Parts: sequence; structure tokens; C-alpha cells
Amino acid sequence: MPLLNYAERMEKLKVSEVREIIKFIMQPGIISFAGGIPDGRLFPMEAVADISQKVLNECGAESLQYASSEGYIPLREQIKQRMAKYGIQSEVENILLLNGAQQGIEFSGRILLDQGDIVLCESPTYLGALNAYKTYQCDFKEVPCDEDGIIPEELEKILKTIPNIKMIYTVPDYQNPTGRQWTLERRQQFMEVVNRHHLPVVEDSPYYELRYDGESLPPLKALDTKGLVIYLGSFSKIFCPGLRMGWVCADRNILQNFILAKQSCDLQGNTFAERQVSFYLRDYDIQAHIEEVRKTYKYRRDVMQEMIESEFPKNIKNTAPKGGTFIWVELPTDVNAREVLQEAVKKNVAFIPGGSFYPESNTENAMRLSFVSMDEQEIRKGMKLLGQVLKTFI
Amino acid sequence: MPLLNYAERMEKLKVSEVREIIKFIMQPGIISFAGGIPDGRLFPMEAVADISQKVLNECGAESLQYASSEGYIPLREQIKQRMAKYGIQSEVENILLLNGAQQGIEFSGRILLDQGDIVLCESPTYLGALNAYKTYQCDFKEVPCDEDGIIPEELEKILKTIPNIKMIYTVPDYQNPTGRQWTLERRQQFMEVVNRHHLPVVEDSPYYELRYDGESLPPLKALDTKGLVIYLGSFSKIFCPGLRMGWVCADRNILQNFILAKQSCDLQGNTFAERQVSFYLRDYDIQAHIEEVRKTYKYRRDVMQEMIESEFPKNIKNTAPKGGTFIWVELPTDVNAREVLQEAVKKNVAFIPGGSFYPESNTENAMRLSFVSMDEQEIRKGMKLLGQVLKTFI
Repeated sequence: MPLLNYAERMEKLKVSEVREIIKFIMQPGIISFAGGIPDGRLFPMEAVADISQKVLNECGAESLQYASSEGYIPLREQIKQRMAKYGIQSEVENILLLNGAQQGIEFSGRILLDQGDIVLCESPTYLGALNAYKTYQCDFKEVPCDEDGIIPEELEKILKTIPNIKMIYTVPDYQNPTGRQWTLERRQQFMEVVNRHHLPVVEDSPYYELRYDGESLPPLKALDTKGLVIYLGSFSKIFCPGLRMGWVCADRNILQNFILAKQSCDLQGNTFAERQVSFYLRDYDIQAHIEEVRKTYKYRRDVMQEMIESEFPKNIKNTAPKGGTFIWVELPTDVNAREVLQEAVKKNVAFIPGGSFYPESNTENAMRLSFVSMDEQEIRKGMKLLGQVLKTFI
Repeated sequence: MPLLNYAERMEKLKVSEVREIIKFIMQPGIISFAGGIPDGRLFPMEAVADISQKVLNECGAESLQYASSEGYIPLREQIKQRMAKYGIQSEVENILLLNGAQQGIEFSGRILLDQGDIVLCESPTYLGALNAYKTYQCDFKEVPCDEDGIIPEELEKILKTIPNIKMIYTVPDYQNPTGRQWTLERRQQFMEVVNRHHLPVVEDSPYYELRYDGESLPPLKALDTKGLVIYLGSFSKIFCPGLRMGWVCADRNILQNFILAKQSCDLQGNTFAERQVSFYLRDYDIQAHIEEVRKTYKYRRDVMQEMIESEFPKNIKNTAPKGGTFIWVELPTDVNAREVLQEAVKKNVAFIPGGSFYPESNTENAMRLSFVSMDEQEIRKGMKLLGQVLKTFI
């Protein structure tokens, strides 16, 4: 049977390596440091049971009916109030509910990118963003980073020398995959540069509230005086990912374009799920829940770091993230993490090889380890096994 | 503040007129024949309350967790079995769950359309499909239709004379906006033509089970011997739209491209909603529910037709749909339905002007009337008012 003639944009797309690995590790018995999958044992199951009934009782048929594309107004109001605590001033009219922050990444590409445009990103950066943007046949340019975030001078240099730069994608807080948090000074310098160049910024911020040490810093959006920052938030890491509840907060004109994208892509969100999240925020103490999640994940991060120190070969380097879900491990340059994964999987341990997170460079000597999905015992056991595997390579 | 430089594809997009009108008519006191919005009074609320608890009890944290992009396997199995009753033979691997059938329309454009490609469609056709495809900077060509569906000779003529035709979008059962059902003979002739030209077909089928008279005919997908038909189904009209549960059934190679689209757009569906629908199908008799919905809508269709006859001017023409949610009314050529709407709204009655449903031609003398959202009394009252308005124009 002859194949169809697909659109040109499909040529560059391949199945998400991470999601394919996640499919594999969904099997029982696998110790997985691969996906940044929240530990389901922490989900507030009883609260969800309670609010699901309340939604049906209080909202009735409206909770299962068509509704506006923008989403449930009370939830947008609650999001506005939550963001105000981070320093983001907004109105309900600046907020659109999304199927997770991923949909916001996709929409930002859809409304901004023409073929051949360049997207700037951190080096390394979130794979799912690269996949979403690739659909629009753009190119990528990695901006050099250090432990404090994007290096403003490097950004400035790139903006001065390369034409066609259309936007920059960033994860300033506890980045996927490195766990890095940009410093306040860097945030200010960064905004100064993008303001000068009138460059739209996507601030992808799903980990903002998963802070374990230090202090929360103002999101870029809180420092945005020119309406250039498209802020993406999510309930996936602080409540649960299965309800697919995220949002975008942006300047009205940008938001209008996001609404157009929403209408043509799937008309509107899930009205029941929007109310579930809204009622949870109304009737339960999400801050107390986040506190519990933080405490658990912080402990696991500490255990993982301890195990890296005791079990991994000495000539590796790892980040010491202050929040989020990932530790990034750099191996000696001659070690290919994809080969390490093949051996690790034989011992029922999984992680994501770092090579996937670079759009341009061929950097294969890194691993992304998630410390949130497994409990202490699993982390200790898996890291020991992984250490053994690494020692056969190094 | 200077505006951003948006992507070229955004130029042709405008806010969905239908969804903007729907926003207006969400206000209490409006008699709306505008959206094909199911009557929420028929939603099985108690069943949803029951299954929501069962999902949490039986599936636990899994029902709120990340999962595979393809969707919950038991639901895909149930969909496969339901489609087998319509005559569609498939495997679970041919099925991907979607956020409503709209997401499938969008994905079909995404994987198939390059700039300048031509999409064939019925004349008139579903507005939401036009909006989704426009994103990919395609052009449209309307294929002439009569009461029996697309005219195969006209399709053949177009395929022979116009290059760049990439796909055809169809709604063979109780079409939006006309309510038309293609005859069996036309379906067979159509498949013969598209097979010969190896033309991919999107079969958008949200109304298939809302049949009031006559018999169900095989979907195009059931007649598809070459893997060319991309079948889109939905639970929106037979269960409820708020959970946003639709699916695509297609050839494996096409489906693989849909999965890529799903991964980059929103990673996966809502795991809780997928289980809600699956448990509903497992524990309740959806056929009995559909029977009740059918009986109610059939009666309303009859009332609306009766009111057209008694209250509308004589020199109009209307379809007599055997299923679905819409009646299509053609006014004398010098009457503009958008102007009629402006007057109708003053009397708190709404509908959708037909002009929105033609991508090419400027046909403004038609109205789409939904008969499903309002009850008998509301239909009688609204149609009487609409008749009065029409008589001032005709």
C-alpha cells in the first residue's frame, strides 16, 4: 500500500525519545529515574474524590457541557491570585487555560514561528519544547549557560550577529534537564537585553513551587515591563498531571492569538477538570500539600546526591539543584550515555541520556536523573546499580 | 507598545464566529438555535458521579498520573468494539484518543498540509474544520453537493483539473451545517473516486449515532480498502462534550503521525476523563441512553420543522435531516442572514448565519438552526419570534 504524501514539517519530527522510554519503564519492577513523573503516592486522592462529587452537585450539567475557549473564570481568578504571590500582576483576561503547559509551548510556536525562523534556547533545554517548535520548521540556536543561567553577554552577542531570531524559550526555575535556577541578577540582565531587542520570551515554569533550598526568585514575567514574556504555568507537579491543567499568562494581544490557537486546535478545555482543580484550590490547602511534596522530594534529592557521591565514579560532575525534579550528571567526554542506558536497562534501571536535550551540539556524555518518582529505598538500590554500570564505562 | 511580529499563518485566522456567538448566548434568557450544544438536561449526571468514584477507587493514583500518548487501552478496546458495530474493522493500535474530534481535524491538517495545498470540502461545510486547516496556509475548493451528498462526477472533474489537492474533508452523516446524510450509493461512488486518485479522506463523524429516521449507513471507513480514510469519532453528542473525548481511527502509518502530533501538542489526554468514559461504557447502557437522547431530539426536530412550516415565510427552503442536530434554511438570495441575526438577537433569539460555512463562495442567504439545545416550548417560542423577524426581511 503506497504511503501518503505527508507535510514537509513531519520530516524532522520523531517519536519523543523520553515518552518512548517512559512507555518501557511503565512496566512493573523498573526503577526509573527517567521521567519527571510525580510520585502518585503523594496525590491527594480523597480530596479529588470529594471535589469530584462537589463539582457535579454544585455545577450540575454545566460541568460536562461546552463552554468558552478561555476556560472556567473562577479558576482563572484563582490562578491570577496565586501568580500575584510570585510577583506577577495580571487580570483574568490575561489568562487562558491549557492542556498542560506543553500546549502553551506548542501555541507559542504556532503563533510566532515561520519557516526558517530561529528559536533561542538554553543549552541544554527541554526536549518537549524542541519537538513542538520543530513542527514549525524553525532552527535552533543554543545560548551558552553557566550555573547562574543564561549568560547575558552571550545572548547579546547572538542577537547582534544572527538575523531571523523570533523568540527565546527559557526555564528559569529548576530547569529541565539541569535543575538550574537563574540568579536574580541574571534575570534582570536578561530582561534588559530582551527588552532592548524587543524579543518575545517563553517562560516555562512548571517547577516554580518545588523549591527545597534558598529563596523563590521573581519569575521573568514579574520583571516584564514590555509585555514580552509569555508565562506558562502548570498544576502537573504540584497537584497531578493526569488532569492536564496548565495555563498561559500573557499580554492581551498575545493572549488573543493563543485563544485563536485554542479554538482551532481543540475548541476548549475539559470543563469538568477545570472545576476539579478550581474546587480543590477553594476547599483544600494546596500550600500545605505542596509543603508535604517539597519535604518528600527534598529528602529524595539529598539521598540521590549522597548516592552519587558514594556510588558513582569520581570523575563525573553533577548539578546540585535547589528545586524541581532533576539532577544532571556529566560523564567523561568519551562516555556515551545512550550506551550506558542500554546496560542499565538490563539491570532494570532507567534514565534519560543527555544527548536528547541539545538541539545543535552532539553532547552525548550526560544523563538526566529524576529523583521524584522513586522512594528512598528504590533510589538507593537503583543508584547502586547505576554506579556499577557506570564503573564498567569509566 | 509595539506589537509582536506574529507568524504569517495567523493572518488568515479570526476568532470563531460561532464560538463568539455562543459566548453571547450563554447568557440566561436567550433562546439559542446557534451552537449544536447537547441539552445538558439529558446528561447522565448520577452515572457520572458513580463512575467518577469508581475510577478513583479502582485505578487509584494511575487515574491522575502521566500515561502513554495513545490513551487508556481499555477505552480504545471499547471504541474498537463500538466501531465494529458500524462496520469498521480495526485494532486498538489503529486508535488514538483525542481532545474531541476537533483535535483530529487539526492533526490531519498538521500532518498532511503544506502551504498552498488544496483541501476539498463539501459546500457548505463545518466552520471549525476550515479554521483548523487555515493555520496551515492551505486553500479550499468546495465540491458541489446535492441532497444525497457529494456529487462524484463533480469530484472527479475537480481532481482531474486542479493540481495540489492534498486531502478531502467530509461529514457524511447528518452534516454540520446542513444535516445531510450521504446515500449508500454515493458513499460507494465516492470511495471509488478517492481510491483511484489515492486521496486521503477525513471522515468527521460526531453525529453518527444520532439517527432519527431511516437506517444507519456504513461509514466511509467501513468501505475503505486502501487505508485512505481517517475516521474521527466523538463522545460529545452521545455522552457529553465537557470531557473532550474523541478519537481517530486510521491506518497504522497515519496513526503514527497522529501520535507524533499528540506528543508535541499536549503530550497525552486527560487520564481521569479517559477512565470516566471507559467506566461509563463498562457499567452503564450507553445504547439505552442514546435511545433516550434520540427520542428527545427527534421530537424537537419535528417541532422545529412544524414551526418552519407554520411560522416562516413560504419562499424559503429547508433541509429535512434524518439525524444530527441541525436544520439548514435557505432564504431568498437577496436576504442576508447576518442582518437577520442582528434583528433576531434583539428579540433574544440566536442562530448561526450560513455565510460562515462557505470557504470560497459568498453565500449569505442561509441560516443554521440547531434543534437540540432547546425544549419544545422554547423552540415554539423562538421559532415564532424568528418567523416574525424573517417576515420583515422577506
